[in-house]
Amino acid sequence: MAMELEAGDYGAFMEKFELLPPQSEQQLPLHGLTFAIKDIFDISGRVTGFGNPDWARTHAPAAATSPVVLATLAAGATSVGKTVMDEMAYSINGENAHYGTPTNPCAPDRVPGGSSSGSAVAVAAKLVDFALGTDTGGSVRVPAAYCGIFGLRPSHGLVSTENVTPMSQMFDTVGWFARDLSTFSRVSNVLLPLPADNTTKQPLQFTIPKDCFEILGSLKDQTYQILNASVTKRFGEAVDNRNLGEFVSNNVPTIGKFISDFSESEAPSVPALSVISYVMRCLQRSEFKANHAEWVKTVKPNLGPGIRERVYEAIISADGPMEDFHALKTEFKSALSALVKDDGILAIPTVPGSPPKLRMEAGALENFRARAFSLLSIAGLSGFCQLSIPLGVRDGVPVSVSLVARHGADRFLLSVAQELYGTLKEETKKAWSSSQSSL
Amino acid sequence: MAMELEAGDYGAFMEKFELLPPQSEQQLPLHGLTFAIKDIFDISGRVTGFGNPDWARTHAPAAATSPVVLATLAAGATSVGKTVMDEMAYSINGENAHYGTPTNPCAPDRVPGGSSSGSAVAVAAKLVDFALGTDTGGSVRVPAAYCGIFGLRPSHGLVSTENVTPMSQMFDTVGWFARDLSTFSRVSNVLLPLPADNTTKQPLQFTIPKDCFEILGSLKDQTYQILNASVTKRFGEAVDNRNLGEFVSNNVPTIGKFISDFSESEAPSVPALSVISYVMRCLQRSEFKANHAEWVKTVKPNLGPGIRERVYEAIISADGPMEDFHALKTEFKSALSALVKDDGILAIPTVPGSPPKLRMEAGALENFRARAFSLLSIAGLSGFCQLSIPLGVRDGVPVSVSLVARHGADRFLLSVAQELYGTLKEETKKAWSSSQSSL
Repeated sequence: MAMELEAGDYGAFMEKFELLPPQSEQQLPLHGLTFAIKDIFDISGRVTGFGNPDWARTHAPAAATSPVVLATLAAGATSVGKTVMDEMAYSINGENAHYGTPTNPCAPDRVPGGSSSGSAVAVAAKLVDFALGTDTGGSVRVPAAYCGIFGLRPSHGLVSTENVTPMSQMFDTVGWFARDLSTFSRVSNVLLPLPADNTTKQPLQFTIPKDCFEILGSLKDQTYQILNASVTKRFGEAVDNRNLGEFVSNNVPTIGKFISDFSESEAPSVPALSVISYVMRCLQRSEFKANHAEWVKTVKPNLGPGIRERVYEAIISADGPMEDFHALKTEFKSALSALVKDDGILAIPTVPGSPPKLRMEAGALENFRARAFSLLSIAGLSGFCQLSIPLGVRDGVPVSVSLVARHGADRFLLSVAQELYGTLKEETKKAWSSSQSSL
Repeated sequence: MAMELEAGDYGAFMEKFELLPPQSEQQLPLHGLTFAIKDIFDISGRVTGFGNPDWARTHAPAAATSPVVLATLAAGATSVGKTVMDEMAYSINGENAHYGTPTNPCAPDRVPGGSSSGSAVAVAAKLVDFALGTDTGGSVRVPAAYCGIFGLRPSHGLVSTENVTPMSQMFDTVGWFARDLSTFSRVSNVLLPLPADNTTKQPLQFTIPKDCFEILGSLKDQTYQILNASVTKRFGEAVDNRNLGEFVSNNVPTIGKFISDFSESEAPSVPALSVISYVMRCLQRSEFKANHAEWVKTVKPNLGPGIRERVYEAIISADGPMEDFHALKTEFKSALSALVKDDGILAIPTVPGSPPKLRMEAGALENFRARAFSLLSIAGLSGFCQLSIPLGVRDGVPVSVSLVARHGADRFLLSVAQELYGTLKEETKKAWSSSQSSL
């Protein structure tokens, strides 16, 4: 609607016309979508349970609602409830001894992954359209991979963690899950900061480090080839397959102080990534201790198997050479920034193989977890963003890959995923139909 | 509304309940507010005029609307039109020879300030509740100060500049104006990224550098005292009054390469800040040239007095020692970060005195502009956020001060302004009533 310029306008206007806000909730960007909320986000008037009954019992109802939940509601989505999570977010397994382990709809005999277990399951089981989780060490990426859905760990610090119970603030991020990229993008558009500028949408380089796929079990060659073929087909460019371990060893000076402790690790492993993972776990543990040691010592909570050992170990352990850890963290972010650059993508496995069986024996699980953290700590320690992408279910277990982009390039990461996804699915279908089952 | 957990829930939920989106537009955060848009933001289907008729004539209607405009509309505000701006955003004066100079409602015989002149005037004249502008070198802060309203230059890169005509991307920011802090906060809540964490709301240190107030004309002592008194009264802490020029000289190594050229400048000036301002203007000019030289050479636009000289100078000038400029920019950001820290505030004058009279003589205006950029380049070159705060109108001219906080601390900056504003007004009233007019 055009309007006349008037004498009383102080000469301020070029043109007068009316642009109106949405006239109904039907125009809101998440209208019609339902979602679930990990029980780590505050909802005003409700107790935030943090996965443990003793925590719930000793904490008052939240006084405010997390900005992320408010933003999602304001955008038109309806929440249907709070989801089960691993106790104190201190696991990537998804087994909760108190509230029961959410059933992995993709593989009911296997763990759903955690700590955002219920959120991932609610999405995978089509109980909701999307769900909110958090990811400190892998708690969105792992259950996304295990439940065969999309899951994003955004760049650290980019999405509000206000009124979210902290695990380790140095690494805590808020992430989300969806079954399809279209829903995923709608949610991301609401939760990520507005696009900062007209950045290019085309990746200028793709790094698919061969050694990261060695960490995978039986599926390594096939997944690696699917990725290489898809990228070459879709973007028609040379892929850089250099080993990440070697690159990290050569470009992160402080790694020299630790590498000898990890070079004898049980194969398959990449010693430099084991160091990255070790340093991240030490920093995380130290901050977890600062956050929660007092509560643990006072309340002496009943913690389930697997969790109890790690929580108590965390609160009694000494901090180690923190200056070296911080130096290594800074060096690693800067080395990875030089590798991935503004417009590059790093492709890695999300997890080191199929989801573990339910109630797996502790030793085997620990070996699997160590390999998982070698991969998860790449985005974890650098603060980069990572999207886990489902390739499908093969022989009853979900297979996934991850794309990683530099800190702050979350929208770029999602646009590359959108460009690549169709080709990835085609190449996966081709590879799977032409090969024997590998399990 | 609570719901029962069911067997078909896969054990995903802790609790099921419904949280609903807003049920009508009345619940939207900017419901009932009107706003105006600087003619530099794209609005789908309309030509973005960039302040010059030849630009408008040679550009097609925009294909998309700026995300910032969309976000504001989606939050429930109604736009009433596009505002007049300085040609190519290349001035802080606000005089437009083609479309007329918007009338400064505070001081009709003085310039409104630019380049977001019409947006500031529309707010100051109460034609709208808030307005969108852009600030590369001062284009929000200056008209806010001259028109006696609030104006924010957010941290660089924090608010989307997509579908906004670029002036110099290294420094371009989107900012906004309002008459009161309550409206200002509502708009800021929509346009700033969600709060990243539970950061403290209390400033831990306040720096009010004495030398920055020397740049002010006759009002310097009074404004400096009002600020010092208000901060001490409100936050009860020692204020750091060290000179910024000295700090910058000692902590920005590359400044040594340029300082001798500026130590003989006409007083009142701070040589180190003159260097900062010089480097910023050279970087900005170089990027402006890269953006617009071809258009200027091809179209040979009719540009108004004051603008023509600067635009043509920009497109023919050589770049100078760009590596030194970039090094100095990095060093300056890092030095200022060390000074202001995470929880500190730097308080400076927004502009070096009262708004210039309309059609002021070029030489006098140039001296004023040089002093203005000494102050404006502090946030400009560092990428820090700056809020201009009106203190009131004295003897027919508006008086203002600015608070500056580190990159990314925009919400902290606004919360400190809210804490301090009442005391600032009281102290201003006290100082003004007890002293003679200084004009």
